[in-house]
Amino acid sequence: MTQVPRDPDFERRVRASFDRQAVMATFRARLVRVGPGEVDIELPFRAELTQQHGFLHAGIVTTLMDSACGYAALSLMEPGAAVLSVEFKVNLLAPARGSRFLASGRVVRAGRTVAVVSGEFRAVEAEPPGSLLAMMTGTMMSVRDRAGLVD
Amino acid sequence: MTQVPRDPDFERRVRASFDRQAVMATFRARLVRVGPGEVDIELPFRAELTQQHGFLHAGIVTTLMDSACGYAALSLMEPGAAVLSVEFKVNLLAPARGSRFLASGRVVRAGRTVAVVSGEFRAVEAEPPGSLLAMMTGTMMSVRDRAGLVD
Amino acid sequence: MTQVPRDPDFERRVRASFDRQAVMATFRARLVRVGPGEVDIELPFRAELTQQHGFLHAGIVTTLMDSACGYAALSLMEPGAAVLSVEFKVNLLAPARGSRFLASGRVVRAGRTVAVVSGEFRAVEAEPPGSLLAMMTGTMMSVRDRAGLVD
Amino acid sequence: MTQVPRDPDFERRVRASFDRQAVMATFRARLVRVGPGEVDIELPFRAELTQQHGFLHAGIVTTLMDSACGYAALSLMEPGAAVLSVEFKVNLLAPARGSRFLASGRVVRAGRTVAVVSGEFRAVEAEPPGSLLAMMTGTMMSVRDRAGLVD
Repeated sequence: MTQVPRDPDFERRVRASFDRQAVMATFRARLVRVGPGEVDIELPFRAELTQQHGFLHAGIVTTLMDSACGYAALSLMEPGAAVLSVEFKVNLLAPARGSRFLASGRVVRAGRTVAVVSGEFRAVEAEPPGSLLAMMTGTMMSVRDRAGLVD
Repeated sequence: MTQVPRDPDFERRVRASFDRQAVMATFRARLVRVGPGEVDIELPFRAELTQQHGFLHAGIVTTLMDSACGYAALSLMEPGAAVLSVEFKVNLLAPARGSRFLASGRVVRAGRTVAVVSGEFRAVEAEPPGSLLAMMTGTMMSVRDRAGLVD
Repeated sequence: MTQVPRDPDFERRVRASFDRQAVMATFRARLVRVGPGEVDIELPFRAELTQQHGFLHAGIVTTLMDSACGYAALSLMEPGAAVLSVEFKVNLLAPARGSRFLASGRVVRAGRTVAVVSGEFRAVEAEPPGSLLAMMTGTMMSVRDRAGLVD
Repeated sequence: MTQVPRDPDFERRVRASFDRQAVMATFRARLVRVGPGEVDIELPFRAELTQQHGFLHAGIVTTLMDSACGYAALSLMEPGAAVLSVEFKVNLLAPARGSRFLASGRVVRAGRTVAVVSGEFRAVEAEPPGSLLAMMTGTMMSVRDRAGLVD
């Protein structure tokens, strides 16, 4: 499905908003790709973000997929709108071990107010390479004229 | 519903596993209550964990609820079992602003292999106080005899 | 939490819309309670609606909770709006056996456009009585001025 | 991903279990394809199964996707196991209108006890043809030695 951005300047806008997400800098996550309705974020493994067995915590995995999905949705929104996560569901398929991970977000359907998004989380250097560790489906909302919220 | 722990030493076991979650120390989260099937974790606001509008990132909110729910499930498991998150779903009700937050996890039903859990995330100092910011429903699994995994 | 209906005539409106849901008549489901933000629907067991082990099919359980949750949301909407389900998540706690069931829907938070809802499904005549068989959390949307859709 | 069935007789077994789902006969649904980890079910439109706007009820859409996903999971299970739905999440993308629908279920990952599944619901005769109306992600469990449950 081809997605047509309503804001020709969508890439700059997504990158500027990503740069304001303090948590992405804290995690040393990098925005590696911005297309219309598609965003990839890379995360290096960091021991400070692990759960009790030494794997990346499921909530950290979720943080990355949520940002990837949210920015995929924002890339298709009108200028002036801000993006908020309404809800998401995550299935954890395998423990998040590896040295480098890729979170991908993609818009499945962009409506007037809400967008349905789909996310994947993979280990870049894994055995087998790129196997799926977690998946997300969620709903993102476009908000306008709400005090102080712009992306 | 009264939940009967199968491990009389459940509180010590939950606390020891929590102390091994590096991400909880990184976030300065504290385990403030451990009951049979019920766990509360407190989190101070930290600007390093925010999204682009200055609220706590939805993934951080999820991280806290997932740990609270996972440890609520572990508190009812047999000695020797480890807990893994199978899946969770999060609804975000209001932006996570405040100076201190409480994530609560509770077992709704503990089966032989999987437990259904329910989580809530509230701002402790809020207007109105304690209003619900996010909720989770999820599935936790008890694993045994899997290489290296014990809680 | 007290929910204030924006339409004083909400009960009549919910009942009229329920009566237009052909599937509810097909299943012989009855709307037994309509309050502001709260709706109960009763369903008798019917062998024609079972899955392969003789329990009520999980999708039928979902149908009832979705209608209860949707009408709970509609009860708080402005006159002229229609309700649509955006998404829902269902956890199945126990096989749906029994002779009579109750699906309850409740609004957790009603926003301008979307409402977060929570549903429960119980066997009325069960052992133990009223034990929880399934639960739902979902998102309902208020739509206006969309061709032909009014509730 | 190639899925290897553990039961060479999986197709016969899935078809026999489907034939015991009374609700499928009630809805006149037909099992049109059974592959290893993949199942398609066809449903004709029926006015008795509609919600208040004349579309197929979201719960009916769910019923079909749940059966397709459950049988996709069963097709990869060992002889003697039965399949139960643990949980599922459904996103509704567009109203379910059309004269004939296809529900597809697919195993994303088959573990020892639980399988992660993915479902889609499309209108066969639609404009555009085959556009996605709803999607599911869920968890199916393999149960053994539980009183009376075999598939």
